[in-house]
Amino acid sequence: MKPTHIEHIGIAVKDLNEAIPFFEKVYGLECYAVEEVADQKVKTAFFKVGDTKIELLESTDPEGPIGKFIEKKGEGIHHMAFAVENLAEKLTFAEEQGVRLIDKAPRKGAEGLNIGFLHPKSTFGVLTELCEDPNK
Amino acid sequence: MKPTHIEHIGIAVKDLNEAIPFFEKVYGLECYAVEEVADQKVKTAFFKVGDTKIELLESTDPEGPIGKFIEKKGEGIHHMAFAVENLAEKLTFAEEQGVRLIDKAPRKGAEGLNIGFLHPKSTFGVLTELCEDPNK
Repeated sequence: MKPTHIEHIGIAVKDLNEAIPFFEKVYGLECYAVEEVADQKVKTAFFKVGDTKIELLESTDPEGPIGKFIEKKGEGIHHMAFAVENLAEKLTFAEEQGVRLIDKAPRKGAEGLNIGFLHPKSTFGVLTELCEDPNK
Repeated sequence: MKPTHIEHIGIAVKDLNEAIPFFEKVYGLECYAVEEVADQKVKTAFFKVGDTKIELLESTDPEGPIGKFIEKKGEGIHHMAFAVENLAEKLTFAEEQGVRLIDKAPRKGAEGLNIGFLHPKSTFGVLTELCEDPNK
Protein backbone atom coordinates (compact mmCIF):
# COMPACT_ATOMS: atom_id res chain seq x y z
CA MET A 1 0.00 0.00 0.00
CA LYS A 2 2.91 2.29 0.89
CA PRO A 3 1.20 5.53 1.97
CA THR A 4 3.30 8.56 1.01
CA HIS A 5 2.50 10.36 4.28
CA ILE A 6 -0.07 10.80 7.01
CA GLU A 7 -2.69 12.91 5.22
CA HIS A 8 -4.36 14.04 8.44
CA ILE A 9 -5.34 13.27 12.01
CA GLY A 10 -9.05 13.74 12.70
CA ILE A 11 -10.02 15.10 16.13
CA ALA A 12 -13.62 15.20 17.36
CA VAL A 13 -14.43 18.42 19.24
CA LYS A 14 -17.69 19.78 20.62
CA ASP A 15 -17.25 23.34 19.42
CA LEU A 16 -14.98 24.62 16.65
CA ASN A 17 -15.36 28.13 18.03
CA GLU A 18 -13.45 27.03 21.11
CA ALA A 19 -11.08 24.55 19.51
CA ILE A 20 -9.85 26.67 16.58
CA PRO A 21 -8.58 29.55 18.77
CA PHE A 22 -6.90 27.02 21.08
CA PHE A 23 -5.00 25.37 18.22
CA GLU A 24 -4.04 28.79 16.87
CA LYS A 25 -3.00 30.39 20.17
CA VAL A 26 -1.42 27.47 22.03
CA TYR A 27 0.17 25.59 19.12
CA GLY A 28 0.68 28.54 16.76
CA LEU A 29 -1.03 26.70 13.89
CA GLU A 30 -3.12 28.54 11.31
CA CYS A 31 -6.63 27.43 10.45
CA TYR A 32 -6.60 27.72 6.65
CA ALA A 33 -10.04 26.29 5.86
CA VAL A 34 -13.42 25.56 7.43
CA GLU A 35 -15.72 23.29 5.44
CA GLU A 36 -19.05 21.60 6.05
CA VAL A 37 -19.30 18.00 4.84
CA ALA A 38 -23.06 17.56 4.76
CA ASP A 39 -23.22 13.80 4.21
CA GLN A 40 -20.89 13.22 7.17
CA LYS A 41 -22.87 15.67 9.32
CA VAL A 42 -19.72 17.54 10.31
CA LYS A 43 -18.10 20.92 10.06
CA THR A 44 -14.32 20.61 9.67
CA ALA A 45 -11.41 22.96 10.31
CA PHE A 46 -7.94 22.33 8.86
CA PHE A 47 -4.41 23.16 10.02
CA LYS A 48 -1.13 22.21 8.31
CA VAL A 49 1.71 20.72 10.38
CA GLY A 50 4.66 19.62 8.23
CA ASP A 51 3.30 17.32 5.51
CA THR A 52 0.30 16.36 7.66
CA LYS A 53 -2.93 18.14 8.55
CA ILE A 54 -5.00 18.30 11.68
CA GLU A 55 -8.71 18.10 10.91
CA LEU A 56 -11.00 19.23 13.72
CA LEU A 57 -14.50 17.77 13.43
CA GLU A 58 -17.60 19.31 15.00
CA SER A 59 -20.86 17.42 14.64
CA THR A 60 -23.78 19.20 13.00
CA ASP A 61 -26.22 16.47 14.12
CA PRO A 62 -26.21 14.44 17.38
CA GLU A 63 -27.11 11.37 15.29
CA GLY A 64 -24.12 11.79 12.97
CA PRO A 65 -20.90 9.77 13.40
CA ILE A 66 -19.03 12.51 15.29
CA GLY A 67 -22.03 13.32 17.48
CA LYS A 68 -22.28 9.65 18.47
CA PHE A 69 -18.52 9.36 18.99
CA ILE A 70 -18.45 12.33 21.37
CA GLU A 71 -21.49 11.08 23.26
CA LYS A 72 -19.85 7.69 23.76
CA LYS A 73 -16.16 8.55 24.20
CA GLY A 74 -15.92 12.32 24.62
CA GLU A 75 -13.70 14.63 22.61
CA GLY A 76 -10.43 13.25 21.26
CA ILE A 77 -8.66 11.66 18.31
CA HIS A 78 -11.27 10.09 16.03
CA HIS A 79 -9.26 8.70 13.11
CA MET A 80 -6.03 8.86 11.16
CA ALA A 81 -5.68 9.07 7.41
CA PHE A 82 -2.99 7.77 5.08
CA ALA A 83 -2.35 9.46 1.73
CA VAL A 84 -2.26 6.79 -0.98
CA GLU A 85 -2.29 6.57 -4.76
CA ASN A 86 -4.75 4.39 -6.69
CA LEU A 87 -7.26 4.29 -3.86
CA ALA A 88 -9.68 1.78 -5.43
CA GLU A 89 -6.84 -0.75 -5.82
CA LYS A 90 -5.67 -0.13 -2.24
CA LEU A 91 -9.16 -0.78 -0.85
CA THR A 92 -9.32 -4.05 -2.79
CA PHE A 93 -5.86 -5.02 -1.55
CA ALA A 94 -6.80 -4.25 2.07
CA GLU A 95 -9.91 -6.41 1.78
CA GLU A 96 -7.86 -9.26 0.31
CA GLN A 97 -5.60 -8.99 3.38
CA GLY A 98 -8.59 -9.55 5.65
CA VAL A 99 -9.34 -5.91 6.48
CA ARG A 100 -13.03 -5.09 6.91
CA LEU A 101 -13.96 -2.12 4.70
CA ILE A 102 -16.44 0.58 5.71
CA ASP A 103 -16.28 1.90 2.14
CA LYS A 104 -16.07 -0.75 -0.57
CA ALA A 105 -15.37 1.94 -3.16
CA PRO A 106 -13.93 5.47 -3.03
CA ARG A 107 -16.27 8.35 -2.20
CA LYS A 108 -15.83 12.12 -1.92
CA GLY A 109 -14.52 13.56 1.35
CA ALA A 110 -13.44 16.99 2.56
CA GLU A 111 -11.06 19.07 0.44
CA GLY A 112 -12.14 17.26 -2.75
CA LEU A 113 -10.21 14.10 -1.84
CA ASN A 114 -11.37 10.59 -2.72
CA ILE A 115 -11.58 8.64 0.50
CA GLY A 116 -12.34 5.22 1.95
CA PHE A 117 -12.50 4.07 5.57
CA LEU A 118 -11.22 0.80 7.08
CA HIS A 119 -13.12 -0.62 10.03
CA PRO A 120 -11.31 -0.23 13.38
CA LYS A 121 -12.27 -3.78 14.40
CA SER A 122 -9.81 -5.03 11.79
CA THR A 123 -7.11 -2.36 12.27
CA PHE A 124 -6.17 -2.62 15.97
CA GLY A 125 -8.90 -0.23 17.08
CA VAL A 126 -7.76 2.57 14.77
CA LEU A 127 -10.44 4.03 12.49
CA THR A 128 -8.24 4.41 9.41
CA GLU A 129 -8.99 6.49 6.33
CA LEU A 130 -7.26 6.20 2.99
CA CYS A 131 -7.16 9.42 0.94
CA GLU A 132 -6.34 9.96 -2.72
CA ASP A 133 -5.80 13.38 -4.24
CA PRO A 134 -7.60 13.24 -7.63
CA ASN A 135 -5.43 16.12 -8.90
CA LYS A 136 -2.18 14.17 -8.53
CA MET B 1 4.77 27.02 19.72
CA LYS B 2 4.82 26.27 15.98
CA PRO B 3 5.57 22.54 15.80
CA THR B 4 7.65 21.70 12.73
CA HIS B 5 5.73 18.47 12.07
CA ILE B 6 3.80 15.65 13.68
CA GLU B 7 6.61 13.66 15.28
CA HIS B 8 4.50 10.52 15.70
CA ILE B 9 1.12 8.98 16.35
CA GLY B 10 1.09 6.54 19.27
CA ILE B 11 -1.15 3.48 18.94
CA ALA B 12 -1.83 1.12 21.85
CA VAL B 13 -1.86 -2.54 20.80
CA LYS B 14 -2.10 -5.75 22.79
CA ASP B 15 0.60 -7.65 20.95
CA LEU B 16 3.41 -6.23 18.81
CA ASN B 17 3.93 -9.69 17.32
CA GLU B 18 0.52 -9.38 15.67
CA ALA B 19 0.50 -5.65 14.99
CA ILE B 20 3.96 -5.29 13.39
CA PRO B 21 3.31 -7.85 10.62
CA PHE B 22 -0.08 -6.21 9.96
CA PHE B 23 1.44 -2.75 9.49
CA GLU B 24 4.16 -4.24 7.30
CA LYS B 25 1.95 -6.45 5.14
CA VAL B 26 -1.22 -4.38 4.82
CA TYR B 27 0.26 -0.87 4.75
CA GLY B 28 3.68 -1.73 3.31
CA LEU B 29 5.48 0.14 6.11
CA GLU B 30 8.82 -1.05 7.48
CA CYS B 31 9.37 -1.49 11.21
CA TYR B 32 12.81 0.08 11.63
CA ALA B 33 13.17 -0.15 15.42
CA VAL B 34 11.77 -1.94 18.46
CA GLU B 35 12.65 -0.43 21.84
CA GLU B 36 11.62 -1.03 25.42
CA VAL B 37 10.98 2.11 27.49
CA ALA B 38 11.19 0.69 31.00
CA ASP B 39 9.87 3.67 32.96
CA GLN B 40 6.78 3.85 30.72
CA LYS B 41 6.29 0.07 30.98
CA VAL B 42 6.02 -0.29 27.22
CA LYS B 43 7.69 -1.93 24.28
CA THR B 44 7.54 0.29 21.19
CA ALA B 45 7.82 -0.36 17.45
CA PHE B 46 8.46 2.44 14.94
CA PHE B 47 7.50 2.95 11.29
CA LYS B 48 8.21 6.01 9.14
CA VAL B 49 5.43 7.54 7.02
CA GLY B 50 6.51 10.76 5.30
CA ASP B 51 7.91 13.08 7.97
CA THR B 52 5.85 11.37 10.70
CA LYS B 53 6.23 8.09 12.55
CA ILE B 54 3.78 5.53 13.79
CA GLU B 55 4.71 4.27 17.25
CA LEU B 56 3.02 1.03 18.28
CA LEU B 57 2.91 0.60 22.05
CA GLU B 58 2.59 -2.76 23.81
CA SER B 59 2.30 -2.73 27.57
CA THR B 60 4.87 -4.70 29.57
CA ASP B 61 2.81 -4.34 32.78
CA PRO B 62 -1.00 -4.32 33.20
CA GLU B 63 -0.57 -1.49 35.74
CA GLY B 64 1.37 0.70 33.30
CA PRO B 65 -0.30 3.54 31.34
CA ILE B 66 -0.81 1.52 28.15
CA GLY B 67 -2.03 -1.54 30.07
CA LYS B 68 -4.64 0.61 31.80
CA PHE B 69 -5.59 2.40 28.58
CA ILE B 70 -6.25 -0.89 26.77
CA GLU B 71 -8.21 -2.30 29.71
CA LYS B 72 -10.43 0.80 29.76
CA LYS B 73 -10.75 1.71 26.07
CA GLY B 74 -9.33 -1.17 24.06
CA GLU B 75 -6.68 -0.91 21.38
CA GLY B 76 -6.47 2.30 19.36
CA ILE B 77 -4.84 5.69 19.01
CA HIS B 78 -3.35 6.68 22.37
CA HIS B 79 -1.65 10.03 21.70
CA MET B 80 -0.19 12.35 19.11
CA ALA B 81 3.16 14.08 19.31
CA PHE B 82 4.33 17.41 17.93
CA ALA B 83 8.01 18.01 17.12
CA VAL B 84 9.09 21.31 18.70
CA GLU B 85 12.28 23.20 19.42
CA ASN B 86 13.17 24.55 22.89
CA LEU B 87 10.88 22.10 24.67
CA ALA B 88 11.28 23.53 28.18
CA GLU B 89 10.14 26.97 26.95
CA LYS B 90 7.22 25.43 25.08
CA LEU B 91 6.01 23.60 28.21
CA THR B 92 6.16 26.86 30.16
CA PHE B 93 4.28 28.67 27.38
CA ALA B 94 1.58 25.97 27.28
CA GLU B 95 1.10 26.24 31.04
CA GLU B 96 0.81 30.01 30.79
CA GLN B 97 -1.95 29.49 28.21
CA GLY B 98 -3.90 27.42 30.73
CA VAL B 99 -2.84 23.95 29.56
CA ARG B 100 -2.44 21.38 32.33
CA LEU B 101 0.98 19.73 32.13
CA ILE B 102 1.62 16.07 32.88
CA ASP B 103 5.35 16.81 32.70
CA LYS B 104 6.43 20.14 34.16
CA ALA B 105 9.92 19.66 32.72
CA PRO B 106 11.34 17.64 29.80
CA ARG B 107 12.22 14.00 30.41
CA LYS B 108 13.73 11.27 28.25
CA GLY B 109 11.46 9.31 25.91
CA ALA B 110 11.92 6.71 23.20
CA GLU B 111 14.55 7.25 20.48
CA GLY B 112 16.58 9.57 22.76
CA LEU B 113 14.09 12.43 22.40
CA ASN B 114 13.29 14.89 25.18
CA ILE B 115 9.56 14.77 25.75
CA GLY B 116 6.73 16.29 27.78
CA PHE B 117 3.03 15.41 27.88
CA LEU B 118 0.04 17.78 28.02
CA HIS B 119 -3.04 16.56 29.88
CA PRO B 120 -5.95 15.59 27.59
CA LYS B 121 -8.44 17.31 29.90
CA SER B 122 -7.00 20.63 28.73
CA THR B 123 -6.40 19.69 25.06
CA PHE B 124 -9.84 18.64 23.78
CA GLY B 125 -9.41 15.04 24.89
CA VAL B 126 -6.16 14.55 22.97
CA LEU B 127 -3.23 13.24 24.98
CA THR B 128 -0.56 15.43 23.38
CA GLU B 129 3.18 14.92 23.55
CA LEU B 130 5.81 17.51 22.71
CA CYS B 131 9.14 16.10 21.46
CA GLU B 132 12.50 17.78 21.06
CA ASP B 133 15.42 16.20 19.26
CA PRO B 134 18.47 17.00 21.42
CA ASN B 135 20.75 16.46 18.41
CA LYS B 136 19.19 19.32 16.42
